[in-house]
Amino acid sequence: MKTYKIPEASIIRLSVYSRYLNQLDNKGVLTISSGEIAEGVGVSPAQVRKDLAYFGEFGTRGVGYNVKDLNRHMMKILGLNKAWKIVIVGAGNLGKALSFYKGFHERGLSVVGLFDKNTDLIGEMVGNNRVMCIGELEQFVREEQVDIGVIAVPSKYAQETADVLVEAGIKAILNFAPKALVDVPNTVELRNVDLAVNLEILTFNMGMKEE
Amino acid sequence: MKTYKIPEASIIRLSVYSRYLNQLDNKGVLTISSGEIAEGVGVSPAQVRKDLAYFGEFGTRGVGYNVKDLNRHMMKILGLNKAWKIVIVGAGNLGKALSFYKGFHERGLSVVGLFDKNTDLIGEMVGNNRVMCIGELEQFVREEQVDIGVIAVPSKYAQETADVLVEAGIKAILNFAPKALVDVPNTVELRNVDLAVNLEILTFNMGMKEE
Repeated sequence: MKTYKIPEASIIRLSVYSRYLNQLDNKGVLTISSGEIAEGVGVSPAQVRKDLAYFGEFGTRGVGYNVKDLNRHMMKILGLNKAWKIVIVGAGNLGKALSFYKGFHERGLSVVGLFDKNTDLIGEMVGNNRVMCIGELEQFVREEQVDIGVIAVPSKYAQETADVLVEAGIKAILNFAPKALVDVPNTVELRNVDLAVNLEILTFNMGMKEE
Repeated sequence: MKTYKIPEASIIRLSVYSRYLNQLDNKGVLTISSGEIAEGVGVSPAQVRKDLAYFGEFGTRGVGYNVKDLNRHMMKILGLNKAWKIVIVGAGNLGKALSFYKGFHERGLSVVGLFDKNTDLIGEMVGNNRVMCIGELEQFVREEQVDIGVIAVPSKYAQETADVLVEAGIKAILNFAPKALVDVPNTVELRNVDLAVNLEILTFNMGMKEE
């Protein structure tokens, strides 16, 4: 395992830069300066240059960066030079919202299955996915060699969902269940998306202003 | 304006600690040690002690922390010692998922209105909220003195939604639209929740392992 020492904050920005370059590439833009990237994504030019420096030299002085080359390199660093398969567990509003999320597909992330235990939802078409029964999850993940499991079930079912995904050999889990207490082996990448935290950072900042 | 110098990562953990204390308080637990908090939320005991040290001394050696007092103090720091009003703009799957999200209410964050421009959705009941027409947003925010606006509309409508919220005097915006290019005055707190970034941090980590 190669261990880059890149701060997570830089990876986050790299993901943002790369999606911006994707848009530009789709519009036929050929070259770009770090200043233009900075303006496009709302980050300082110094920060963009510093982030790009982690990944070696790409630019040509006075010409800037080749959009396609720079983005290809970024996608590779982000692990997006291959296709990844995703299953979403939970076909409620959140699971549906995630299924329809356009941002995944254009990055090579395919939602190949959507699961629920609610018989009212099983069989329903959500975009191109027919909601499958949770009992089929393990076999599906194994046979389809799914890489990533997204947990969009109520908190109390989060751990058992994670267990099934791990048992089936999933490589990574993105957990949206509010109580982020999912326990998985070290070999499985886990990321918790905590919606309340995002609001509480806002209330923290607003509280500071009012004092 | 008081300016604490607290790293955002500490605020994020504080939000997690505080919600854990909430749960314990609801179960009638009276005291807790930093080690138990650490175990409960999956953070190292040293990190918990370091985070708590930002906010002064609360604990009694050998006894630990009073759960209620510690949580009351944390809630105050997080700006949650008062009630905040929220409107959600966009009543699609994501807006609905956010409306139903239990994590907000128990923190004193009330969703007081849900808006859309789609006439098929206007009038629909989502939990206790009837979806209102986007044209009523500005007046509603002004009259109800709403604090926080959540943007859950497609990217191309994100900026115009932000403009209406700002014009109506909102204090903070949480933006879920994928292209985080919303431009607001400095006086308005803005936070972008980027769902794709969370997946790309996973693919980055998986890519590292495979090399």
